[in-house]
Amino acid sequence: MTTASPLGEFGRIGRYFKPLAAGFAGARGLADDAAVFGVPDGQELVVTTDAMVAGVHFLPTDPPGDIAAKLLRVNLSDLAAMGAEPLAYTLVTALPRGIGEAWLAAFADALGDDQGRFGIHLAGGDSVSTSGPITLSVTAFGLVPRGQALPRNGGRAGDAVFVTGSIGDAALGLQVVLGTLPADGAEPLVARLRRPEPRTAVGPRLRGLASSCIDVSDGLVADLAHLAEESGCAAVLHADRVPLSPAARAVIGNDPRRLAAALTGGDDYELLFTAPESARDALAALARDTGVPIAEIGRAVAGPTGRVEVLDADGAPLALERRGWDHF
Amino acid sequence: MTTASPLGEFGRIGRYFKPLAAGFAGARGLADDAAVFGVPDGQELVVTTDAMVAGVHFLPTDPPGDIAAKLLRVNLSDLAAMGAEPLAYTLVTALPRGIGEAWLAAFADALGDDQGRFGIHLAGGDSVSTSGPITLSVTAFGLVPRGQALPRNGGRAGDAVFVTGSIGDAALGLQVVLGTLPADGAEPLVARLRRPEPRTAVGPRLRGLASSCIDVSDGLVADLAHLAEESGCAAVLHADRVPLSPAARAVIGNDPRRLAAALTGGDDYELLFTAPESARDALAALARDTGVPIAEIGRAVAGPTGRVEVLDADGAPLALERRGWDHF
Repeated sequence: MTTASPLGEFGRIGRYFKPLAAGFAGARGLADDAAVFGVPDGQELVVTTDAMVAGVHFLPTDPPGDIAAKLLRVNLSDLAAMGAEPLAYTLVTALPRGIGEAWLAAFADALGDDQGRFGIHLAGGDSVSTSGPITLSVTAFGLVPRGQALPRNGGRAGDAVFVTGSIGDAALGLQVVLGTLPADGAEPLVARLRRPEPRTAVGPRLRGLASSCIDVSDGLVADLAHLAEESGCAAVLHADRVPLSPAARAVIGNDPRRLAAALTGGDDYELLFTAPESARDALAALARDTGVPIAEIGRAVAGPTGRVEVLDADGAPLALERRGWDHF
Repeated sequence: MTTASPLGEFGRIGRYFKPLAAGFAGARGLADDAAVFGVPDGQELVVTTDAMVAGVHFLPTDPPGDIAAKLLRVNLSDLAAMGAEPLAYTLVTALPRGIGEAWLAAFADALGDDQGRFGIHLAGGDSVSTSGPITLSVTAFGLVPRGQALPRNGGRAGDAVFVTGSIGDAALGLQVVLGTLPADGAEPLVARLRRPEPRTAVGPRLRGLASSCIDVSDGLVADLAHLAEESGCAAVLHADRVPLSPAARAVIGNDPRRLAAALTGGDDYELLFTAPESARDALAALARDTGVPIAEIGRAVAGPTGRVEVLDADGAPLALERRGWDHF
């Protein structure tokens, strides 16, 4: 309950965080106890929260700019999965007393860069000290037209299963960082791990097309199981149709364990969704418009609720040791 | 990135947190990536965040129910200070792996009790593990009629300064817990420290009466300085008019250091506000209606921005070693 930083809480907020709130009137310059903002008529607010702890979700030695970008982007990915347009966010930092101004400056800089890139603003938050690891959370706010948020539970047997972008880069990148995969040529994988690419351009345009949607954080297979579980159906996933980046393809080669790591590793932050077959053409057009590939990788089917069957190129079941990460 | 609890993240959410979200449709049963809710026409959303860390804001051995109640109530106090009615909240828990089900059950129980008491519902959140101390944050949402949120910056020289309830209990209670004050007869002080009483019944009814408002968390003198600073004026505080509970009065006696502790100690979560003298009668009626005392304790004056002069019963300046806590 004492001041540690030479700047103090108010000083740090003034120097690093007030500038991030300058573009959002509802933040009231971070001078009040709270942010105040309206929601336009006919719109609803989407609210999502993700927390990250050093040693659990990132390495304490990761560059602060990467940590900031990941923190904000995983929340932006949740907004995209709901079909929401980004609006604002609040930030809670619990930092060890030894964290210096340089760390904070780089952290805030990266937030500012991403604010501009994704059209979102700081609205408020809290800064506290901790005797433990760096602990961060963002609560992000987005807007959707009333009743049009994408659910997890709207998938129906017969729907096709789609995914944006490519899968597995982050999981393989983590193995590179941990030294269990060679670093040679793996820079794109590590970059994807550290700075995921939230599909904010695609998510809102899936409204009216996707029947259910989730972002891939726990792993492709686990998150497809979440969709199937909530939708009351089963799903089939064709492993050979799962889109892989050139870097991931090179690392995986013919190694089934590496393919399994890509399918179950998580941290992809791609959008995984179901849609009726009739949406195929519109989805192809959306992929062209946004430059974000959309691949059809499976199907929602009648069967035990939440079961996911993963098939290889010959249609034979693929054995996976586990389905995904549990970040708790 | 591995599962520690026998229940896992989804199991814990299902058992302890889903029941807390049952009363709020926007929570979507915690099954989606986000909460979705509207804001009624003519209303604005008020959003506030407060974090608490074991060893900084509470003791790791405090009862989990007290920790839960304090976490929610400090946020409710922020809503009250904005004049907002409670709506919903999100919760982030970063817990050591050793935290057992009994701790979580007591924590969730207390949240449920306070939800009923204060009319607020869980809307979402995140649960992660940490190698460090228990780290908690709540982002609370409230509603105010458009443009009527209470600001910090509306005070004007000539306004009277008021405070609800009584001041100093929590600061003296902390000294009792730390062993620097005798425990005899001090139970009410410790109770106030552990379970503050957010003034949710008063806050919304200050709209149209108070010119500026803050809740007392850093300390009465420091928070009055915040109001004065934001309002561009100075303030005078009459120490002898500051309301004290019987327990606080008994402990303070004639000890100026203990009086100073009460005035600067913080964690009171009373509402401190300015209002024109013409509001006196309405404020007296509000105090009668709500059963919450409202005392006039000073005045906003022309002078150096943010300066607070504390006077004793004879009108002589009272020397204070410090003005309040900085929780950073």
